[in-house]
Amino acid sequence: MDRPGQLVRGAVCARGDAVNQLSEHYRQVRRHTLALAEPLSDEDCGAQSMTDASPVKWHLAHTTWFFETFILERLEQDFVPFHTAFRVLFNSYYNGIGEKHPRAQRGLLTRPSMAEVRAYRSNVDARMASLLAAASGHDGAGLQAGLASLLTLGLQHEQQHQELLLTDVKHLLAQNPLLPAYLAQPLLPPPAAPALEWRLFEGGLCEIGYQGAGFCFDNELPRHRQYLAPFELATRLVSNGEYLAFIEAGGYRDAGLWLAEGWDWVRSQQLAAPLYWRQDGQGQWHEFTLYGEQPLVAARPACHLSLFEADAYARWAGARLPTEAEWEYAAQHAGVAEPLQAMALHPRSAGEGGDRGSLLQMLGQGWQWTSSSYAGYPGFRTAAGALGEYNGKFMLNQYVLRGSSCATPAGHGRISYRNFFPAGARWQFTAIRLARQSSVAA
Amino acid sequence: MDRPGQLVRGAVCARGDAVNQLSEHYRQVRRHTLALAEPLSDEDCGAQSMTDASPVKWHLAHTTWFFETFILERLEQDFVPFHTAFRVLFNSYYNGIGEKHPRAQRGLLTRPSMAEVRAYRSNVDARMASLLAAASGHDGAGLQAGLASLLTLGLQHEQQHQELLLTDVKHLLAQNPLLPAYLAQPLLPPPAAPALEWRLFEGGLCEIGYQGAGFCFDNELPRHRQYLAPFELATRLVSNGEYLAFIEAGGYRDAGLWLAEGWDWVRSQQLAAPLYWRQDGQGQWHEFTLYGEQPLVAARPACHLSLFEADAYARWAGARLPTEAEWEYAAQHAGVAEPLQAMALHPRSAGEGGDRGSLLQMLGQGWQWTSSSYAGYPGFRTAAGALGEYNGKFMLNQYVLRGSSCATPAGHGRISYRNFFPAGARWQFTAIRLARQSSVAA
Amino acid sequence: MDRPGQLVRGAVCARGDAVNQLSEHYRQVRRHTLALAEPLSDEDCGAQSMTDASPVKWHLAHTTWFFETFILERLEQDFVPFHTAFRVLFNSYYNGIGEKHPRAQRGLLTRPSMAEVRAYRSNVDARMASLLAAASGHDGAGLQAGLASLLTLGLQHEQQHQELLLTDVKHLLAQNPLLPAYLAQPLLPPPAAPALEWRLFEGGLCEIGYQGAGFCFDNELPRHRQYLAPFELATRLVSNGEYLAFIEAGGYRDAGLWLAEGWDWVRSQQLAAPLYWRQDGQGQWHEFTLYGEQPLVAARPACHLSLFEADAYARWAGARLPTEAEWEYAAQHAGVAEPLQAMALHPRSAGEGGDRGSLLQMLGQGWQWTSSSYAGYPGFRTAAGALGEYNGKFMLNQYVLRGSSCATPAGHGRISYRNFFPAGARWQFTAIRLARQSSVAA
Amino acid sequence: MDRPGQLVRGAVCARGDAVNQLSEHYRQVRRHTLALAEPLSDEDCGAQSMTDASPVKWHLAHTTWFFETFILERLEQDFVPFHTAFRVLFNSYYNGIGEKHPRAQRGLLTRPSMAEVRAYRSNVDARMASLLAAASGHDGAGLQAGLASLLTLGLQHEQQHQELLLTDVKHLLAQNPLLPAYLAQPLLPPPAAPALEWRLFEGGLCEIGYQGAGFCFDNELPRHRQYLAPFELATRLVSNGEYLAFIEAGGYRDAGLWLAEGWDWVRSQQLAAPLYWRQDGQGQWHEFTLYGEQPLVAARPACHLSLFEADAYARWAGARLPTEAEWEYAAQHAGVAEPLQAMALHPRSAGEGGDRGSLLQMLGQGWQWTSSSYAGYPGFRTAAGALGEYNGKFMLNQYVLRGSSCATPAGHGRISYRNFFPAGARWQFTAIRLARQSSVAA
Repeated sequence: MDRPGQLVRGAVCARGDAVNQLSEHYRQVRRHTLALAEPLSDEDCGAQSMTDASPVKWHLAHTTWFFETFILERLEQDFVPFHTAFRVLFNSYYNGIGEKHPRAQRGLLTRPSMAEVRAYRSNVDARMASLLAAASGHDGAGLQAGLASLLTLGLQHEQQHQELLLTDVKHLLAQNPLLPAYLAQPLLPPPAAPALEWRLFEGGLCEIGYQGAGFCFDNELPRHRQYLAPFELATRLVSNGEYLAFIEAGGYRDAGLWLAEGWDWVRSQQLAAPLYWRQDGQGQWHEFTLYGEQPLVAARPACHLSLFEADAYARWAGARLPTEAEWEYAAQHAGVAEPLQAMALHPRSAGEGGDRGSLLQMLGQGWQWTSSSYAGYPGFRTAAGALGEYNGKFMLNQYVLRGSSCATPAGHGRISYRNFFPAGARWQFTAIRLARQSSVAA
Repeated sequence: MDRPGQLVRGAVCARGDAVNQLSEHYRQVRRHTLALAEPLSDEDCGAQSMTDASPVKWHLAHTTWFFETFILERLEQDFVPFHTAFRVLFNSYYNGIGEKHPRAQRGLLTRPSMAEVRAYRSNVDARMASLLAAASGHDGAGLQAGLASLLTLGLQHEQQHQELLLTDVKHLLAQNPLLPAYLAQPLLPPPAAPALEWRLFEGGLCEIGYQGAGFCFDNELPRHRQYLAPFELATRLVSNGEYLAFIEAGGYRDAGLWLAEGWDWVRSQQLAAPLYWRQDGQGQWHEFTLYGEQPLVAARPACHLSLFEADAYARWAGARLPTEAEWEYAAQHAGVAEPLQAMALHPRSAGEGGDRGSLLQMLGQGWQWTSSSYAGYPGFRTAAGALGEYNGKFMLNQYVLRGSSCATPAGHGRISYRNFFPAGARWQFTAIRLARQSSVAA
Repeated sequence: MDRPGQLVRGAVCARGDAVNQLSEHYRQVRRHTLALAEPLSDEDCGAQSMTDASPVKWHLAHTTWFFETFILERLEQDFVPFHTAFRVLFNSYYNGIGEKHPRAQRGLLTRPSMAEVRAYRSNVDARMASLLAAASGHDGAGLQAGLASLLTLGLQHEQQHQELLLTDVKHLLAQNPLLPAYLAQPLLPPPAAPALEWRLFEGGLCEIGYQGAGFCFDNELPRHRQYLAPFELATRLVSNGEYLAFIEAGGYRDAGLWLAEGWDWVRSQQLAAPLYWRQDGQGQWHEFTLYGEQPLVAARPACHLSLFEADAYARWAGARLPTEAEWEYAAQHAGVAEPLQAMALHPRSAGEGGDRGSLLQMLGQGWQWTSSSYAGYPGFRTAAGALGEYNGKFMLNQYVLRGSSCATPAGHGRISYRNFFPAGARWQFTAIRLARQSSVAA
Repeated sequence: MDRPGQLVRGAVCARGDAVNQLSEHYRQVRRHTLALAEPLSDEDCGAQSMTDASPVKWHLAHTTWFFETFILERLEQDFVPFHTAFRVLFNSYYNGIGEKHPRAQRGLLTRPSMAEVRAYRSNVDARMASLLAAASGHDGAGLQAGLASLLTLGLQHEQQHQELLLTDVKHLLAQNPLLPAYLAQPLLPPPAAPALEWRLFEGGLCEIGYQGAGFCFDNELPRHRQYLAPFELATRLVSNGEYLAFIEAGGYRDAGLWLAEGWDWVRSQQLAAPLYWRQDGQGQWHEFTLYGEQPLVAARPACHLSLFEADAYARWAGARLPTEAEWEYAAQHAGVAEPLQAMALHPRSAGEGGDRGSLLQMLGQGWQWTSSSYAGYPGFRTAAGALGEYNGKFMLNQYVLRGSSCATPAGHGRISYRNFFPAGARWQFTAIRLARQSSVAA
């Protein structure tokens, strides 16, 4: 994706029906990206609200560039680029590919137009279809492993951008004093949340990292051993109501609760609430969502929090954040699954149905900050060539988030998945799950 | 206008036919603004390339806001604003009107859409037409002086924004690596330029400032006496060819040619040529224009220069910049007039026809930097109320430019007109006319 | 001096006794500089509180460098520099001399030590004495004009630095929470101030600029004609009490009183009072002075004000700032003279004795902001060589102050003297004298 | 210490002779700090070369403030502070103590003078001596555990500042174009370095963290289990000669070698060599040291490197940085000890004698970057009260360095010691020890 990403590891060899399945998956993923842009005007799609975010149009083009650059350019006979300038314009961060358009100026690219970018997508989709058909039919041997692997990576990459597209457009709309909604608010049942409880995990010598035959990013590998002391994990995410209690207790004014860098961050930006929260003249709290500004719902998960805020809240609550190994180990042992209900554009409360297992909201509501700095697992290796930049070069001063969010495409999450952002990032759907030392263990 | 502007002074009393003329002038000016946006997509109209510039859409809305706020809100019966939020969104700098949307974030206003802004324009135009009709027909007495004066000011204001719209969109397109053209390049006769000559002016006790019965901005008043020593003025603007000689002589590397602040500016920004110039790998110079990037034409006026560059060039050439009083006095005595040829989107050479009088290119090609700091004339007064902010509050650390440019609407210029920008501004069509002490005088 | 300065114009030819007088003047000025450093420790002399200010040690060395570079290096036989590195270390801004130590890092030059800088001063003083003796005695013809002129310039330059040394050390001490005094406060008679009155001046075609046989800087030349409309000037400076009324009337919160750039300045720096003013918990105002922090005395001149503040105050008071030509013309006609009393380190009230003439406090209390942007007089020329940098290159975005201050060395001021600073500068002893259009004139 | 520090854990109970020993240790440590300031003038001691560094005078006062605040204020009868303002002036970062003087303005504190700070030290030393005598003699029971623990912490804290004092003064002197030496260069034997070899470690389930009865900081606790895969560690530090080969191979120009943030750092600062290295006109490399600028010695360890540089070098060399657990585990198994030779102010080559064991230069030459982000060990707890700020609040966006340097006071280092700095820090004596995956293990 356009920010610290992860590279697929492990060849996928696809034959016969598998090729058809991959082709169908390609069409579905590509179509879904366009669908996400549907509620937006061309003007909405061109603007960039901050350097960390990208215009929707840029997401549409960059994900297409990815297929053109890493698949068509390598495998298409008589390859001719759709537009030579796009190689630079829509390169995100791959030094190995060459020059890049400056990230902070993506919002100035009023040309190519949205119409041209749609044409670019259609063109690449057609060429990809031809390539897949030819590769599949050539000798009945199916796709060679390399192509299947690159194709899968490209689709996973596009899914990552589907989530970024939503968080970026949310940030853009939130800057507008008219507070426009991305979509109209659906009717929802009145939420309720079960009490926050603790579940004990024994730990010991465990194994962390992806295991299986499916897709994973390279940063989930190699699977390796780690030793964990006993710990407890909260059964659900911290709610808006609980976070509000922290605010009302003066949490944003008490230096003792914050990391030194977090305290500087709070004071220099004069922060007193999560991103998108607003208190009106009558003292009522509201939250800007993709459904427009809404009254704050106490039972739903607090989100759009930085690591600084998550860490301070945990300290105030007499707990701490989990390590990423603890999170993954717990997920291995607790039968974690995605919620059953349809996709929503805002996190739902643990009581709004669909959650299963003894640990609620592990997937599908909000990314969960861990105390683990993002680093390569022991023995981690980057791929050769430009795709090797997908990952390793971002392993510094970023912190791992686990789980997935309401904006993560269905089927994209995994319990070994490693998302990562700098400690001050707030525009993703980032939430808090508490951990604590085991009170029963040695 | 949206930057340091000038307020109309002097009541205009319009009766009968005069009202019809004003109404017709209103329609023409308003139509022309929309025409300037014609070659652009909605996406082009939404982007903001730097804080100094504004999106085209913002110009379209702000000029409309001006009529709604300063005329309809005062004079329309049962006034209801088109949209309450627009009062803040499209206020440029009038503290007296209340809050303002942050200037640097105008490019994030993807809502209201271009369609809504066009509707806003239509709505205000219709209400203005009603108001004018009613005011005119009420008792046959014609418009009261205040309305005619405000209407004229609003149109002059809109003409200022017509020029800014072009310079802002030029800056935006120039940031795009695709170097798109605003319009296709017209066929042009091969240019040629007469030799630069000097014309002597005697000076003495003279009078400066607007005189007449027409419109002028308040900063052109009061007309007042100044004493001028004899001086000489160049008969045309400095050409690209002459400026190139300055570059090739090392002008950008010689500290001794620059004001101290100018030298810091050159070094911190690592400048070596005017804005929009580019030297290709073969050493050929090109210039980005509203017709796209074009080979540099030696005979045409050098433009998009800061005061720093104009001043350094003059020093290198053994001359100096004129004062604004010298410029105006010379224009009074030299029969200055606008060129006859149709409007162009780039300055033409003095030899490309249309220029008249002994001083060429005084109007219609490029704004000419003077050495005069922008200040109120002796006895200058600002108007009461928010419109008093149009002008006086910008009289600091800005320098006066005289004349007008190829982007100035026909009929908008005047020899007493005072434009002004900070010394480092380059995105306007700014040029150099040299002056020097008289070699014959005492 | 180390900031925008002014170059002596006009050769001085000194013979016989005149040489002795110059030599004696040299000794006095040099001794006085050292005397100003007497109350300070070596540590005090090394620190730099902001980029605009310099350490005392640097002032001591730079003024010595000036004599060594511009006189000894040119005229001394077998010239050997005291220390080759000093040519770079103590060059202020003369590009013609070569490299310069970065201004912002002057406070890091713990070597050479104060002892070495004192030795440098002694060494140069001895060599200057030899040079003067030799030049004088050589053939009885006295000093050639060039040497006398350079010597005079060097001493005027050193006097400028005597004032800067005091304002810079005041700024440094003010940063220290211990609020140390430079000197102990002398016993003073209770101050009183006469009422502020207005004196009318007729104006007309007048002459501005230095006239006489003595020393002046080149920016005071050439004397030239200007036309002035009638105006009135306040008979004394604005007092602390009057300025406090402006504060209490909400002056710092009313955008309508400020230049646009001034309003940005007030808000971005969250200002609400002059530099060095502090209101204690009981509401009492105090002012940090070179005598330490003192209760604010209502009758004394308000000082340490920016042009922004002076301009806003004048607007609030229904007046305006004078132009520099008005100030000088008024001084020509009002018999202005320096106050008789001994030097003080803080401005005194107009009632504290010593002031003479119908315009009080024109010299010796506080520099008076004018509305005139700093520019060369018509026909102004810079000298050839590095000394030509003394002046002209600073003629941009600075405003002229007239008069002199309590920190100006006796004998250094002149009614044609032109001091200048950017509009936001406050650490000099800058004050307000009001002007207004004549109420009786046409 | 004044930056991310570590708090002593574990009570020390001292009786009889132990009290005498502690008192003697107090005198020795305090005397040594003053000795480090001996080669410097008062001017040298007052300057601050960057926000990360502090003036020597500030170090002298702050370490004294530590004893006064955390011991005397708690335990001295009728406690009266030496100077009430010092509580604020010399507080480094303890929010629990109250206000702090802004870090960036420490160099402006010309008062109190060095003489006053020396008096402050003497005063506190005398009061500490009384307190210790009284505590010891009171009832023969020896010091209570709390006092001994605080005293030990204060001395360890002061030793940390002894090292910072040297690195800060080195940075200050390096800014001075005169390149002054802190001390004269001693005569040294010609250096030589053994070949860089690899030593294999088996790993497995190991124990990390301090173990024993002596002093350690709280961040070295609790000792806990970790699982390590087999790895190899280089037997000595990377040398200047080896690092020079990296430079000459274009290491600073190859984006592929750098972390993304590191590459931005290199380009924005235009870096091409370690801090303090300079290549002269003849291509010879020199290094600024506390002995002044010296020719670069190929055999000595490369130091003053950021984590970015260490990481890029390792990648270029086909290796990686060790984790902190690998480093400590290796040190446990390799009989690491401090070198025998006397303290030097610059790292020595592995061949210059004194090193023992199969892993050379583990202690006493340069701090060794690890790939481990600084975080609390499992079960880590901060102390109650202000001293709890010593440590935990810095556990973000910093990386652990292991070992110790030539500037670390003798006896201060430990193999469980955890130093930490941000990835871009270079002014400490920071070096590179390479690691790699075991080529023999699974």
